[in-house]
Amino acid sequence: MTSETASKDCLGWAARDPSGVLSPYSFNRRAVGSDDVSITITHCGVCYADVIWTRNKHGDSKYPLVPGHEIVGIVKEVGHNVSRFKVGDHVGVGTYVNSCRDCKYCNDGLEVHCARYCYKIANDYPLALAAPLLCAGITVYTPMMRHKMNQPGKSVGVIGLGGLGHMAVKFGKAFGLNVTVLSTSTSKKEEALSLLGADKFVVSSDLEQMKALGKSLDFIIDTASGDHPFDAYMSLLKVAGVYVLVGFPSEVKFSPASLNIGAKTVSGSVTGGTKDTQEMLEYCAAHKIYPQIETIPIENVNEALERLIKRDRGRWSKDERSTPASREESKQRRLKCGEEAN
Amino acid sequence: MTSETASKDCLGWAARDPSGVLSPYSFNRRAVGSDDVSITITHCGVCYADVIWTRNKHGDSKYPLVPGHEIVGIVKEVGHNVSRFKVGDHVGVGTYVNSCRDCKYCNDGLEVHCARYCYKIANDYPLALAAPLLCAGITVYTPMMRHKMNQPGKSVGVIGLGGLGHMAVKFGKAFGLNVTVLSTSTSKKEEALSLLGADKFVVSSDLEQMKALGKSLDFIIDTASGDHPFDAYMSLLKVAGVYVLVGFPSEVKFSPASLNIGAKTVSGSVTGGTKDTQEMLEYCAAHKIYPQIETIPIENVNEALERLIKRDRGRWSKDERSTPASREESKQRRLKCGEEAN
Repeated sequence: MTSETASKDCLGWAARDPSGVLSPYSFNRRAVGSDDVSITITHCGVCYADVIWTRNKHGDSKYPLVPGHEIVGIVKEVGHNVSRFKVGDHVGVGTYVNSCRDCKYCNDGLEVHCARYCYKIANDYPLALAAPLLCAGITVYTPMMRHKMNQPGKSVGVIGLGGLGHMAVKFGKAFGLNVTVLSTSTSKKEEALSLLGADKFVVSSDLEQMKALGKSLDFIIDTASGDHPFDAYMSLLKVAGVYVLVGFPSEVKFSPASLNIGAKTVSGSVTGGTKDTQEMLEYCAAHKIYPQIETIPIENVNEALERLIKRDRGRWSKDERSTPASREESKQRRLKCGEEAN
Repeated sequence: MTSETASKDCLGWAARDPSGVLSPYSFNRRAVGSDDVSITITHCGVCYADVIWTRNKHGDSKYPLVPGHEIVGIVKEVGHNVSRFKVGDHVGVGTYVNSCRDCKYCNDGLEVHCARYCYKIANDYPLALAAPLLCAGITVYTPMMRHKMNQPGKSVGVIGLGGLGHMAVKFGKAFGLNVTVLSTSTSKKEEALSLLGADKFVVSSDLEQMKALGKSLDFIIDTASGDHPFDAYMSLLKVAGVYVLVGFPSEVKFSPASLNIGAKTVSGSVTGGTKDTQEMLEYCAAHKIYPQIETIPIENVNEALERLIKRDRGRWSKDERSTPASREESKQRRLKCGEEAN
């Protein structure tokens, strides 16, 4: 990424305007620079953020726009300064590929700079399954580690069972936590308990169930992006309990008593640093933690985006450890695409 | 507090109805039980909570009602099980005098039970100055210690400069922090900088000053009970910064981006445990940390409560290390009273 000389053709699928329709798009990339890694992309996750960008929902999209931020593949070529990666390595690229590199946060590591945002993936970890780890996985892993949720025997409540929430359940079980899934309806009960292995499932609108759960949780991870009340969930926390928000509702609003009485904490998080991301990938490989996915060819990408918007439940194929997915789950539906990039 | 036999007369000042007017009130206390400590009260703080209780603002007051929850005095008599205190000790009693004593929180210490809520005060610490430590002092000390704000060189912003806020400034300086006072007007600038020793004073309505302070604080302590926006203050925090709320506005409301971007934390707190309270009293004695107070005789208590409601600035007498107090400060105005209790 240091040399600016264009050299070879590259095929992506791009949106051309706010209709967000993707179609094949050929473009040139510069030659592989001394600090660059060129990757043959095997799979790319689909996330609701792709809808936001391709349809210019935030008003800052520039067309043509090739979406994708959960990218995995195989190293095809490396620049001569690159020592962390070699041709043939399985790698991933996540939600960011640059930073100022000049502040105390950036300088907390000393990696080869332009290979800084490329992560190693274990050879025996299926690449299709690795893609969602780079957004959904790291988004819940980082605050879980930061707030010491990896203490066996502690309890966590997971609000929302989409891409983020289902990974929080999987990490929670791997950490030895007692996991309660909180959902607005019973439709996800079977998935939560049987497929994901949660210990308990509570319908948040059921006052009896909620009351029985009062003051019993050490942690809550709130992955819901829709607007919802906070006080009722905060009442489930023990004294000094920690509530982590990773979703983006339109506002956060609660009574000060919900926070002060019991000295509770509400903390936020977005994605994770490069160190955390690499650690998370290794943890998933070592503990055989796999996201639930559905693999689709790039030719069906527009249909996939439409299904994402409609929260189409879809289905997971058997060879990907799956059962029928929840509506929320379909928000994080994955697709397979073939694209080359460096 | 274990024997129920009434024995001697006791004089308090009680409200008889929701007018909240206090007048002398004689009542009987039981004899000093085996686990009891009887105290000659020398001083009692006045806090806005006393207005709430005496005027039945929460609808749960029972009359006659003797207010006071920042009580200091001298031990007059102890029960035969009491080993922590002896006659003549300077002691204090704060915002609570009982608890279930049967949960993991209560059982974190093994004190003589009924002397559990009585604290030692150093003999050379002026009793009149010790009273406010038992509510205002401990309310800010506990979250400051819990969130590791005692790291020299870190920075803290203090919102509101009343009883709680001015103690937060004093603790902050004692901890070696860089302290910024955030206020809605310039009227408290002199007090903050010259009297309390804050490093910086920022008017929160001044957008330029607020912008210059952006992303610069490790911690914020919000002692304001009036309604106020949160997003602007949260923008002053560094990455992973901690915002502690100890006030009770009508609601807490902010954008999820204010929390998530920068992985910030909002945490709440009310008063402190017995261990923290004793530790805080010892810390204040060792570091000569004294609240700003005004001492008044018990006969003027009704005027004091009226001034509290009107936020009368009042004045601090010279011998109590004082200068004209702020309006907020008067919310925590102290008074001297003579009452005996056990």
